[in-house]
Formats: sequence, C-alpha cells, structure tokens
Amino acid sequence: VPSPTDGVDAGDLDELRAWLTGTGTLDIAEELSRWQAAEKALAIRLLPRDRALAVFEALDASDQQEVLEGLQSDRVRHLVEHMDPDDRARLLDEVPAKVAHRLLSQLSPHERGLTNELLGYPPESAGRVMSPEYVNLRQSMTVADALAKVRRAGRDAETIYTLPVTDDQRRLVGVVSLRQLVLSPPDVRVEHLMVTDELHHVHVTDDQEDAARLIQEADLLALPVLDSEERLVGVITVDDAMEVMEAEYTEDLAGIGASMPLSRPYMAASVAELARTRALWLLVLIIAAGLTVNVLQFFEETLETVVTLALFIPLLMGTGGNSGSQAATVVIRAMAVGELRFADLPRVAWREARVGLMLGAMLAVAGFLPVTLIFDAEIGLVISLTIVTICFWATLAGSALPMVAKRAGVDPAVVSAPLITTFVDATGLIIYFMIARTVLGL
Amino acid sequence: VPSPTDGVDAGDLDELRAWLTGTGTLDIAEELSRWQAAEKALAIRLLPRDRALAVFEALDASDQQEVLEGLQSDRVRHLVEHMDPDDRARLLDEVPAKVAHRLLSQLSPHERGLTNELLGYPPESAGRVMSPEYVNLRQSMTVADALAKVRRAGRDAETIYTLPVTDDQRRLVGVVSLRQLVLSPPDVRVEHLMVTDELHHVHVTDDQEDAARLIQEADLLALPVLDSEERLVGVITVDDAMEVMEAEYTEDLAGIGASMPLSRPYMAASVAELARTRALWLLVLIIAAGLTVNVLQFFEETLETVVTLALFIPLLMGTGGNSGSQAATVVIRAMAVGELRFADLPRVAWREARVGLMLGAMLAVAGFLPVTLIFDAEIGLVISLTIVTICFWATLAGSALPMVAKRAGVDPAVVSAPLITTFVDATGLIIYFMIARTVLGL
Repeated sequence: VPSPTDGVDAGDLDELRAWLTGTGTLDIAEELSRWQAAEKALAIRLLPRDRALAVFEALDASDQQEVLEGLQSDRVRHLVEHMDPDDRARLLDEVPAKVAHRLLSQLSPHERGLTNELLGYPPESAGRVMSPEYVNLRQSMTVADALAKVRRAGRDAETIYTLPVTDDQRRLVGVVSLRQLVLSPPDVRVEHLMVTDELHHVHVTDDQEDAARLIQEADLLALPVLDSEERLVGVITVDDAMEVMEAEYTEDLAGIGASMPLSRPYMAASVAELARTRALWLLVLIIAAGLTVNVLQFFEETLETVVTLALFIPLLMGTGGNSGSQAATVVIRAMAVGELRFADLPRVAWREARVGLMLGAMLAVAGFLPVTLIFDAEIGLVISLTIVTICFWATLAGSALPMVAKRAGVDPAVVSAPLITTFVDATGLIIYFMIARTVLGL
Repeated sequence: VPSPTDGVDAGDLDELRAWLTGTGTLDIAEELSRWQAAEKALAIRLLPRDRALAVFEALDASDQQEVLEGLQSDRVRHLVEHMDPDDRARLLDEVPAKVAHRLLSQLSPHERGLTNELLGYPPESAGRVMSPEYVNLRQSMTVADALAKVRRAGRDAETIYTLPVTDDQRRLVGVVSLRQLVLSPPDVRVEHLMVTDELHHVHVTDDQEDAARLIQEADLLALPVLDSEERLVGVITVDDAMEVMEAEYTEDLAGIGASMPLSRPYMAASVAELARTRALWLLVLIIAAGLTVNVLQFFEETLETVVTLALFIPLLMGTGGNSGSQAATVVIRAMAVGELRFADLPRVAWREARVGLMLGAMLAVAGFLPVTLIFDAEIGLVISLTIVTICFWATLAGSALPMVAKRAGVDPAVVSAPLITTFVDATGLIIYFMIARTVLGL
C-alpha cells in the first residue's frame, strides 16, 4: 500500500485534518507508528470518536500507550472501555503498573471483570490472548434455537462463526459452525451437526504459540480454551493467532541476529533502546571470542614460523560460521513448525554430518588448485583438509546445538547462530593448527 | 502434540491400521510427512475415502505428490477431484508437467475450468491462492434474499462469512459479513449493511504476500480479488494467508542462514537435496572471502613484525559480523512488516551509526584493560580503536545494505547477513591494520 503521506507535517493542523479525512484506517495507523508520541495523540484527538477507536485498535500496544499519555481522561476512558478484552489485556501488560491500575479502575464493572480474568493467566499463555466473550450452544437446541441465541447474544462476542457446544457443567462437548447452522434446516438438532471427533481445544495455561499453530494447521477460525477443570472459558480467534505467530517470528529472527526483540516498531524505538537490545549479546559473544585469542596464543609459535597460516584465518572462520548457520537456521525452522523432535537428534546429526562432508569436499576440491598456485601444495593441502573438517564439524554442531538447547528449555533461536559461530571459530582454529602442524611437520 | 507413533513399522499392516483408527487427522498428516513415499501412499490406501481426503488435504504439496505416485488411478482421481481449487493449483504446480496434464484431464469439466483459471496467473500472485468459489450478493437484496442465496449457493464456496456485493458488471461495490446478515432483521437491504468505505481488495497479479499482510492487518477472514478490469474473480481466505506468510518466513530465514528454502519438509528431503540448497551460497561466500586473504597478504609484512596482531583477527571479525547481523536482521524484519521504506534510508543510517558507536564504545572500554594487562597498552589501544570503528562500520553496512538490496529488487533477506559478514570481514581487516600501523608506528 503506497502511503500518500510522505511530507505530511503533523504540526499543520489543517493539513493533518485533511489527510486524516482522506486516508484509510490502516494507513493512518501505519503512519502513526512512525510519529512522535505527541503527534500520535494529536491525530487521534482530531478524529471522530468512532474512527479514533478504529485507528487506536489497529495500533501496537506500545503506540497505544503513547497515544493515551497525550489524551484527556474522558477520551482515554472511551478508548479503553471499547477495546476488545484481549487487546486491552495486552495494552495493560505494556503500561506501568500504576497506569494499568488507574485505567482498570475507570472501566465499567463488566469490562473490568473480563480484563482482570485475562490478566490472571501467565504471560505467553493461551489465556492471555483468548476472548472471554463467546456464544455457546446446548446440544439439545434446534438450529432455529441456536440462531435465535446467536442473534440474542452475538453482538458482543468476538466471533459467532465458531460456536462451542457445552453441557450443564460448561464442559465442551462439540463445536458447530455458523456455516452449518445457516445451511441446515431449522428443526435439525445441534447434536447432529456438531463436530465431536478430533475436537480441537487448548487449556488456559498452554503456550500461545501452540494454540496459534493448531489454528493454522487445522484451518480454524476460533479455538475453544478450557480451564484446569475442563470448563470452557473463552476462544482464541484466527486474527489473534496470526499476531502471536508474527510476534514469534520477530523473536526468532532477533535471536538469530543476536539481539533481543524490540517491544515497539523500529522507527518508534530510540537509539538507546536499539543499543540496549543488542549490548548484552554483543558483550557475551566478545567474551566468548576471547577463547579464540587464547587458542591462537597457544599456537603463536607455529604462527611465527609460518605467517602465511594467518592469512587464511578469516576465510576458514567465515566458512565454518556459514556452514554452521545454514544447518542451524534450517533445523530451528523445522523445529518451529513441528517437523523435528528431540528423538530425531541421531538421525539429524547423521544426515547433517554427511551434508557437511559433501559440502566440505566440494569446497576443498575447488580451493586446492588456487591455493597451491598462489602459495604451495603443502598450504593447499592444509587448507583443503581444514575446510572439509570444519564444514563437517560446523554442520554437525549447527544442527545439534539448537535441538539440545530446546530440550534444555532454552529458545533454540536465541542460543544458536551467533553462539555456534563463536564456538565453531574457537574449535575451528584448533583443528586448523593441528592439521597445519601435522602436514607441515612442525 | 506428542505422537504415539514412534516405532510404528509401516510394514506391519495391522499395527498401522490400528494406529490410523486411533489417531487424529492432523497427527496422521504430521507423521506421514516424515515417512518414505511408499509408506505414505500405503497409509492413505488403508484409510476410508473421506478420512483419506482429509489427511491428504492436510499434507504439503510435495507429500501429496508422493502419495499420488503410490496410488491407483481411481483413488488419485477421487482425491484430486475433491480438493479445493487453490490447493489443487498448488499441487499441480509441484508435479512434473506431464503428470499435471494427466491429472487435469481426469477432472470433471467444472473443476478443470476452475483450476485452469488459477494456473493462468503468475507464480506468487494473489490469483494463484484465491478461491474462485465464492457467494456474491446484490445491493438490492434484502437480508432474507441474501440468506436464501447463501443457502442455495454456499455449499461449494470456500467461505460464506465474507460476502462480496457486486453490480451488473460483477464489479465490487461492497462487502457484507454473514455476521451482519444473521444479526439484522430480514427486511433490511444489503446496501444498508455493506461496508463500502475502505473496501479492502487486491488484484489477481498482486503479490500473495501483500494480500496476506492486508488480511492480517485488517483482521479479515477473506479478501476479494479483482481482475484487470476490476471484476470480482475470487477471494483469498485467512487460512491461505497464514500459509503464505509461513512460506515467506521460511524463505527469509533460509536466506539469512545463507541457504535456499527446501521445497519439502526437513526429514523428507534427501541429504543431496539439503547439500544442494546450501552449496551455491557457500561457494559464493568462500570466493568472496578470498578477498580477506588478499587483504592480509597486503599487510603480511606488518603481520610478520607483530604476530600478536594475528591473535585478534577472529575476535574482531566475529564482533564485526555480529554487529552487522544485528542491524541487518532488525532492518530486514522492519521492512518485511512494512515499517520501513527506502526513503527512510538516511534516517535509518543515522540511527544505526549512533547505535554502532555506542556499542563499539562500550566494548572498547570493556576490552582495553584486559588486553593491556595481558599484552600491552599499545595493543590495547589498537584493539579498542578497531572495535569502535568496526562496530560503527558494520552496523551502518548491516542496516543500509538490505534497504539498498530491496530497492534494487533483490530479496533483502537473501543478500544480507552472510554477504554483509564477508564484506565486513574484508573491510574490517583493512581498518584493523591501518589503525595498527598508525598506533604502532610501523
């Protein structure tokens, strides 16, 4: 979507008003996420109440917080009162505890109750993203009864397309879709339409990500959520699932790039925030890289004798890092989409070991001649042997470490690419100098 | 989902049959994706027709192809005939042209027509993933008329929850949801219910990914697709959008890991296939890394004089690579979710330059003392100055290169992390030795 807004000066009220009138909700929200806090609030103030709410709902929680800070309390109350309970819970998670408390106290008792319930579930749990406003049916209802209940109770529900069927104890006994109701004769009973086999559901404390993946794999529009006593307490809708998966991707990618995920859009984050998300990893990795200095110190004599060996250090480290990252990213992805389990480790290691040997052999053969021509055959042999060994070793480590990390309860994406590269650097240097000493007879 | 199937031997028919009966559709599909082609087909043969179809539809296109190869032609015909047209188009894309031709010729004329239409659109386009089976309404209809039409025509449609409203020329004039129809009195006219402002839609030749992102951002269940004459030709549903985004993410991650995406699940890909997706990049990168050998050769004399300088090469290269990857992955992600445009390049570069300087200064201060204690103050100064400069430079390059790549029409994820690392390695060495020569007075 090309935005027509480049050059809009949020300080010029007439221009801003004209732009807001002529621009779609999503485009306004996208543009706002790149503005300063005061400008965001100004734009929301200038919009009619209904549109302001629509734009507000399309913003990230961190942007919403900034908007609220710049508004008067009656507008704040209006916006927060009319949010969906799950979106509101996400926002209250973001703001300081004092602000959250104040916002909660201004809600109507009904909305406050719904929000407090969601905030009681652990972070990252299915309970946090579910909607407590759903329409449930009884199996004894006819289609006509069911449609009447949907008309009566459906206005506030987040979705009426997936209708859980419950018993007297609010236990889930089936699910029926609005599609089935609409396409069936009015006197058919819900119990004859509802799905009871393979009844997909999650529990409030389950991981959000597992719920999102289930929604995707089973092509669901909404997934029932049960409490510890197997009672229905809410539904997770497909739009929430998409958001959970987006956030998860962003987190994985940040981990692979050795930083922590940003809690707000890139352009809205300050330089200090950007630096903060990266500083810790960079420090950890440079300390770990201290190991490479030690290894090289140990081989300093060899290095003094044949300085030529130093010339290949970046190339060999780079190749090891690349092979390791290739294996790690593929394995991380296969685990994320559920294609790999820990029990597969021996098979994966055996596959990757062969892949590493194949790739290493290819590079070694390709590299032998040029190195021999420019330097000599002995150096050519050292480099070729080292490439094969490092590729083999890096591919093996790159595939196994993420699996071991996940098994140990650590996010594989965070532990992997950068740490593997540093680990392969240090061990690769040992391999290099051992081979060099042997071949060159030092 | 823990699978109870480890150790199932597909050769033992009774055990397999019992397992198939006791296992859910999705779990069967997940397990099948890890089996050999012949075993997959065997499992599908043992299932009753309806369940076989459900499992078949839950498989990836590459798995579906393997299943079809192992089945007799009447079962093949049954499965392919009953697939959704968009899933079928995806499958026919995957199989060899000859097989696709044969499968198409066995379809009923109606299904063949639908599929041929989809296959006429360019790869990766919105037209390829849309469903041509939708229910459209007229604005003059009442709610009662509209519901009657939904009942009449809805059985074959992929969704009846989003109902496009069209005029005599099949041009889109609005969209109404089944929710609105069900919640409204029967005599209200569709024109009074339908959304006409901010009417989200895409064109058949638009990028699938843009369509998927629009569905996510606007929380849609289905998105109307128009042809070049602005006529409605289909809808893209939210489940297809999720698949498109998954595939896109897998592709990005493969690029960041310097390999090409696998066309099938990890465990189903052969070792040779795994090696093939990685060989080209590894070769390109090692050739590019040849540059580092040249740079070091140029400074060989300096290196011979102060061998100590060689000890820090892996640490300095690693730190440059890490800073560059951090910046690159954050920028790639921000571009992917539409937060950044090319016009932002100067602002991004200015931000990242400051981030790089801050991080570099932190590491330089932290590193000066240990290096000075173990070696001497001059070496300490060289290393500290190099770290600041390399962090600054790597962060700048890491953020700018993906943006330039995207502008040039190259996938930023593919061009970035690994290439940046190699580029930063070579330039970083020049920086290192220039600083060393100056400080040490060589």
